[in-house]
Amino acid sequence: MSNAAYPESVRRLIEAFAAMPGIGRRSAERLAFHVLRQPASEAMELARAVEAVKKTVKHCGVCWSLADNDPCPICADPRRDASTVLVVEQPKDMLALEKTGLYRGVYHVLLGRLDPLAGVGPEGITLSTLIARIEDPTKNARGAQVTEIILGLNPDLEGDTTALWIAREAGERGVRSTRLARGLPSGSQLEFANPAVLGDALKGRTSL
Amino acid sequence: MSNAAYPESVRRLIEAFAAMPGIGRRSAERLAFHVLRQPASEAMELARAVEAVKKTVKHCGVCWSLADNDPCPICADPRRDASTVLVVEQPKDMLALEKTGLYRGVYHVLLGRLDPLAGVGPEGITLSTLIARIEDPTKNARGAQVTEIILGLNPDLEGDTTALWIAREAGERGVRSTRLARGLPSGSQLEFANPAVLGDALKGRTSL
Repeated sequence: MSNAAYPESVRRLIEAFAAMPGIGRRSAERLAFHVLRQPASEAMELARAVEAVKKTVKHCGVCWSLADNDPCPICADPRRDASTVLVVEQPKDMLALEKTGLYRGVYHVLLGRLDPLAGVGPEGITLSTLIARIEDPTKNARGAQVTEIILGLNPDLEGDTTALWIAREAGERGVRSTRLARGLPSGSQLEFANPAVLGDALKGRTSL
Repeated sequence: MSNAAYPESVRRLIEAFAAMPGIGRRSAERLAFHVLRQPASEAMELARAVEAVKKTVKHCGVCWSLADNDPCPICADPRRDASTVLVVEQPKDMLALEKTGLYRGVYHVLLGRLDPLAGVGPEGITLSTLIARIEDPTKNARGAQVTEIILGLNPDLEGDTTALWIAREAGERGVRSTRLARGLPSGSQLEFANPAVLGDALKGRTSL
């Protein structure tokens, strides 16, 4: 049976949930029923939280990092090399990299990663903005031409898939991509490293 | 890294999503990032849809069916036998049963079913209201004592799990449970029926 049996507002709520990444038809119905069942105060907390985020959280129009200014302080900083763009999945990845104090380029925050099984395709993350930065310097920080993309995605299946996708798109536009090194984590013990980590460490060995 | 790195409103939105059934920590983050990335108009549609549902959709305080009156026309109808309660998962299941014109008892709509893998436990559906109806006639339609629960859940793993749970709880309170018959669907061809259907048909055979 279709949703025709439901009141208009329930149908609308099911549609709104179903439009989100990774939420299928059945999950959307389950979430809508949850809202129906919840005390109004709890349900309204979701509505209020969405409103608050859209009203109070700003992000940088260049790199999608969460920031009160647009462009963000990093994109605006003339001491940062805007021709190098480090691509990360989440704002907190960027914060972790900034804490090292070692990176002098700019960032691009995907706000997710490609995850076909969860229903997240290229349009589900900020990839089109990244491509625009590569193609058109006026879309990049301080009008700089992008010459290198550093892929700083999580080292797992979805991260690697996303990285390959970006590397291909960047390559087609004449921009080279590198990715963060993989190997033994500093301070760890070799005997406890898993085979995948040891394999990466062997393949990526460097001369001393 | 914890969520401490996020603005308060983003943390709040992640919490609101994570409080929903079947939404884990990672999914909640993904949905919150989706909201961050969406144009404000699209994101606000979710907020508005939640508000509209809580403002306009009423349900029957006895059986949780969607209805403009409380109690609903079925619970209020003196010609319906309120001592028999047919338990269904969704409002549309109830509509399908009403269309047969064969049922003269009342209903209870769970608004879901037990689904441990999706994070839905007994408190995630309207089970406590059903137990209250069994224990206390004043909570049931027109003050009737419940004497039979008919389990009309979907004939699959989660439906059966939920049915067993309800049958046990009802039995402990001295109320018997039955479930809808299983067998060959009328109008189908035996040669195409799968083994589970044929098994049900054999086990449930009736004398002529």
